[in-house]
Amino acid sequence: MKAKQILWISALVGACYCFISRSAMALPSQEPLVRLAELEIDPTQLEDYKAALKEEIAASIRIEPGVLKLYAVSVKDHPNQIRLFEMYRDQASYQAHLSTSHFKRYKQATQHMIKSLTLIETEPVLLGSR
Amino acid sequence: MKAKQILWISALVGACYCFISRSAMALPSQEPLVRLAELEIDPTQLEDYKAALKEEIAASIRIEPGVLKLYAVSVKDHPNQIRLFEMYRDQASYQAHLSTSHFKRYKQATQHMIKSLTLIETEPVLLGSR
Repeated sequence: MKAKQILWISALVGACYCFISRSAMALPSQEPLVRLAELEIDPTQLEDYKAALKEEIAASIRIEPGVLKLYAVSVKDHPNQIRLFEMYRDQASYQAHLSTSHFKRYKQATQHMIKSLTLIETEPVLLGSR
Repeated sequence: MKAKQILWISALVGACYCFISRSAMALPSQEPLVRLAELEIDPTQLEDYKAALKEEIAASIRIEPGVLKLYAVSVKDHPNQIRLFEMYRDQASYQAHLSTSHFKRYKQATQHMIKSLTLIETEPVLLGSR
């Protein structure tokens, strides 16, 4: 009877292990998409640019569930150098973001304010967050 | 009696308003500190560097409540170019981070792996997050 019990427990543990392993393997790798942007803004239009950028970020975060982070900072002592750190749930979320009316409005409104724009595609190493 | 009630309610509302205003004014401006880093790693030591970096990020997020984000990415098609986006609760949290044993261990272990390091101080424009 004891041996039988051990056999049953072993079979149960084995089955659980297989189930968990399969579940883990079945999960798609949902690593976010991270993009960086480096912009130089016409200093005479900096306040207008920042207002348009803030409006675009606020709308994206409010409306688009696939936009996880849109962090905008300026380089200290060089306020017209803007750096963006953008995190999307996946590639599809980024593509969807590009076709939103708020993003198109931002692009249209700011095209004459931006002196240079460098877009940088990345591969996450580790995205540590609390 | 009705007039007395109105007086009491007015006094209460006034007191609440004063209290809330004072509390709001007493709050320090708790805008996070954001720093960027751009690193070029010796390609022959890239895997060792990334292992050390991951260990340092994981320890910082686990141990330090003032370390809010440590995002590490590599530039696509240039895997030895690493970009860091670092967000601390405030300046004191950043200073405390620099004196932790895990940060010092990382600096010591990686100093011969890093070909160049550019640290960029920033001013937040808008930190949009969901």
